[in-house]
Amino acid sequence: MLYTVAMNLNTLWTPLILVNFKAYTQAMGKKALELANMAESVSAETDVCIGLAPQYTDIQQLAQKSSLPIFAQHVDPIWPGSFTGHILPQAVKEAGVVGTLINHSERRLKLAEIDATVKMTRDMQLASVVCTNNAKVSASAAALRPDFIAIEPPELIGTGTPVSQAKPEIIIKTETLVKQINPEVIILCGAGITKGDDVTAALRLGTKGVLVASGIVKAKEPKKVLLDFAQAATTV
Amino acid sequence: MLYTVAMNLNTLWTPLILVNFKAYTQAMGKKALELANMAESVSAETDVCIGLAPQYTDIQQLAQKSSLPIFAQHVDPIWPGSFTGHILPQAVKEAGVVGTLINHSERRLKLAEIDATVKMTRDMQLASVVCTNNAKVSASAAALRPDFIAIEPPELIGTGTPVSQAKPEIIIKTETLVKQINPEVIILCGAGITKGDDVTAALRLGTKGVLVASGIVKAKEPKKVLLDFAQAATTV
Amino acid sequence: MLYTVAMNLNTLWTPLILVNFKAYTQAMGKKALELANMAESVSAETDVCIGLAPQYTDIQQLAQKSSLPIFAQHVDPIWPGSFTGHILPQAVKEAGVVGTLINHSERRLKLAEIDATVKMTRDMQLASVVCTNNAKVSASAAALRPDFIAIEPPELIGTGTPVSQAKPEIIIKTETLVKQINPEVIILCGAGITKGDDVTAALRLGTKGVLVASGIVKAKEPKKVLLDFAQAATTV
Amino acid sequence: MLYTVAMNLNTLWTPLILVNFKAYTQAMGKKALELANMAESVSAETDVCIGLAPQYTDIQQLAQKSSLPIFAQHVDPIWPGSFTGHILPQAVKEAGVVGTLINHSERRLKLAEIDATVKMTRDMQLASVVCTNNAKVSASAAALRPDFIAIEPPELIGTGTPVSQAKPEIIIKTETLVKQINPEVIILCGAGITKGDDVTAALRLGTKGVLVASGIVKAKEPKKVLLDFAQAATTV
Repeated sequence: MLYTVAMNLNTLWTPLILVNFKAYTQAMGKKALELANMAESVSAETDVCIGLAPQYTDIQQLAQKSSLPIFAQHVDPIWPGSFTGHILPQAVKEAGVVGTLINHSERRLKLAEIDATVKMTRDMQLASVVCTNNAKVSASAAALRPDFIAIEPPELIGTGTPVSQAKPEIIIKTETLVKQINPEVIILCGAGITKGDDVTAALRLGTKGVLVASGIVKAKEPKKVLLDFAQAATTV
Repeated sequence: MLYTVAMNLNTLWTPLILVNFKAYTQAMGKKALELANMAESVSAETDVCIGLAPQYTDIQQLAQKSSLPIFAQHVDPIWPGSFTGHILPQAVKEAGVVGTLINHSERRLKLAEIDATVKMTRDMQLASVVCTNNAKVSASAAALRPDFIAIEPPELIGTGTPVSQAKPEIIIKTETLVKQINPEVIILCGAGITKGDDVTAALRLGTKGVLVASGIVKAKEPKKVLLDFAQAATTV
Repeated sequence: MLYTVAMNLNTLWTPLILVNFKAYTQAMGKKALELANMAESVSAETDVCIGLAPQYTDIQQLAQKSSLPIFAQHVDPIWPGSFTGHILPQAVKEAGVVGTLINHSERRLKLAEIDATVKMTRDMQLASVVCTNNAKVSASAAALRPDFIAIEPPELIGTGTPVSQAKPEIIIKTETLVKQINPEVIILCGAGITKGDDVTAALRLGTKGVLVASGIVKAKEPKKVLLDFAQAATTV
Repeated sequence: MLYTVAMNLNTLWTPLILVNFKAYTQAMGKKALELANMAESVSAETDVCIGLAPQYTDIQQLAQKSSLPIFAQHVDPIWPGSFTGHILPQAVKEAGVVGTLINHSERRLKLAEIDATVKMTRDMQLASVVCTNNAKVSASAAALRPDFIAIEPPELIGTGTPVSQAKPEIIIKTETLVKQINPEVIILCGAGITKGDDVTAALRLGTKGVLVASGIVKAKEPKKVLLDFAQAATTV
């Protein structure tokens, strides 16, 4: 299904598999490109949208060499100026991203910064994916009107215990609270997603996709797992 | 008017004049006590509730010597343990506070920290006053279910330009958005409040009180200004 | 032995047993006072200086009711003003402290903040105890000219494995590097100190005292352990 | 003059003009490359080393298309792993940097983080440039054994008032204190440097180069100013 935001951003649609490369060397430099190539062929084969969130230093090459939508892992809510060592939204946009993660559990932000970042990304036509840790915080984030919310219980991140199967009630409660506040927000879920079945479960619960990191990046055969995810996404 | 939270906390009611002592020496040590005494006599005379948020080192003496409700200016979302230099909610409660400011513009918190702090204060029977910088952030905070929200446009703090008269639209929008999400939240406003008229304007806009700092603490005659505030509050 | 700083601050001398109350409820409110009373009687009996670093809310009562030197656990490098929720050095001084911990491993500061804090405490006649995590960082801190450096390998804090016995080489290297840069700095050590023998070992290595927390505060019989510490300190 | 660090890093020598691109759009994307090309031709013409510190997203293209030494503006002291939105030293190294700024005034770090970052860069054969705000902090940084220290009084940054001419005493005191602690550290200075004369003054005071940002990046004719800088550097 195509969403308004997707239409504006033209390469982005749902169901969405959003792969966070974190600071993993398995998805850095040349290997970032290899993973992007695998993802592109899986996306082409299955017609499932796969987004990629590489390290900053790899954004430009991935944006140039891949047709998949590229995301930043974080941006600072700053305008051009004297901000040595910060992440300028305009810089990642010029490098080729279509959106950014905001408030990932490994890069939490102050409430006013999330508000400012969502506002900036909207003004710049970048998709905003605000990460949250529970249903109430998801509701809180929804009031800021981001494009996406990705609910990820921190205690499950990187564990292989899938939120969609182990804690479905968190996802259901998130959807209920978020929809009351802002029915247009697209909900993803993440944490512990490693198999197609976890993706199926996530979509059956009403989410529009998954945010995944080690489940793909650290898999022995990333392409095989990506294909498993994508096929699961097409059969719900 | 008495609110549920007020009944639980027994010394707290609305309209509420909440005085933030910040790190001002004009309201520190003995002078904190003097200001508390002035406030207590004004409160007794007018039957308007005046809350006091002194520095941590003054909480205990004020709680012992004043019958007014005392607030912390901030607490860290931590349980007892190895947290050198942090503000333990149980410590300020034992010292005598009935509530705490959370996320003041001079002490902004991460979204997940605000959620954790509100949850902790609720469990501990402390009133939570979440400070916010605009209407959308207020809506976001409301989803976390604090007792109070204090909307304070940062650009007006300490200026003497009263939010309630200079930017009524921010307060009105805050009330609209907050009430949609959580009609039980009590809304205060702050920034630039220095006269009784500013308090009157704030209450006429629908708020239940004001958060004030330099307008009282740095006034030449704090008691006179407090009385002006309190009388204004009784005549709306 | 009496140091210059001690003479200025009049209640402070070495060997020093500095007890950090952290955010432990075992040393909070009334229990803070009880522990202070125990420490005072041990100090009187043994003529060993025992410093106490309680939570902010307990500083005032301890300073009023105990003759032992009281420390803050942390201060912010700020002057009086609009700093809601921060720790004003002047406030803790007025409440009765003679000094402060700076840069504890649970409250690390930026380098420029440590410099500013040491400078402020010196101007205000407060003793500065900069905590460090290794020998090189201790040398770095020494260049800022604090009164004390407390070397505490973070991996041993709270473990009961005493730095003075398990890692004497860290203390020796710290002393060598620090003395080259600033021979006037008084060196303490901490982490895992739970017995008199650990104190003896620390002093034999050349330190002038210990920084201790759970070893005293969480002991079943704090007074007995304090006495054990103090007697060890007098017999080196 | 060639230094040990320079020999190891093979493209780096002194006098060094290190240009910080900050988050300026005037030196972003294509314009980053244009500025790099100007700098390369000035460096070739004058045989003065010019280092470039672009935004993260531009590191890879600059490293590929320029023979000048490229620096990161900041790195986080982290190893590969779950650090979404952070700057992995190995990532910027793989992208082509020979070194990094550390603790710039716009990106201050905790003392223990500076120590960890300097240690990591040394292990990874990256040059470390620790920025400092005064002489005492420079001495403190010197004890951590970085390759370079760049002293920049924050109050002069971006002002056009050159530290080397307006506050020579800060540079002289920095050199005295730093050399006592670690005579091998190479000292740069920065803040307000906009003309060749400022560079001359900096080198005459004993520094081995300058750290510059707006003076070059925001100049109407950056190449002309760079040439002015480089020629000044060759004639001291």
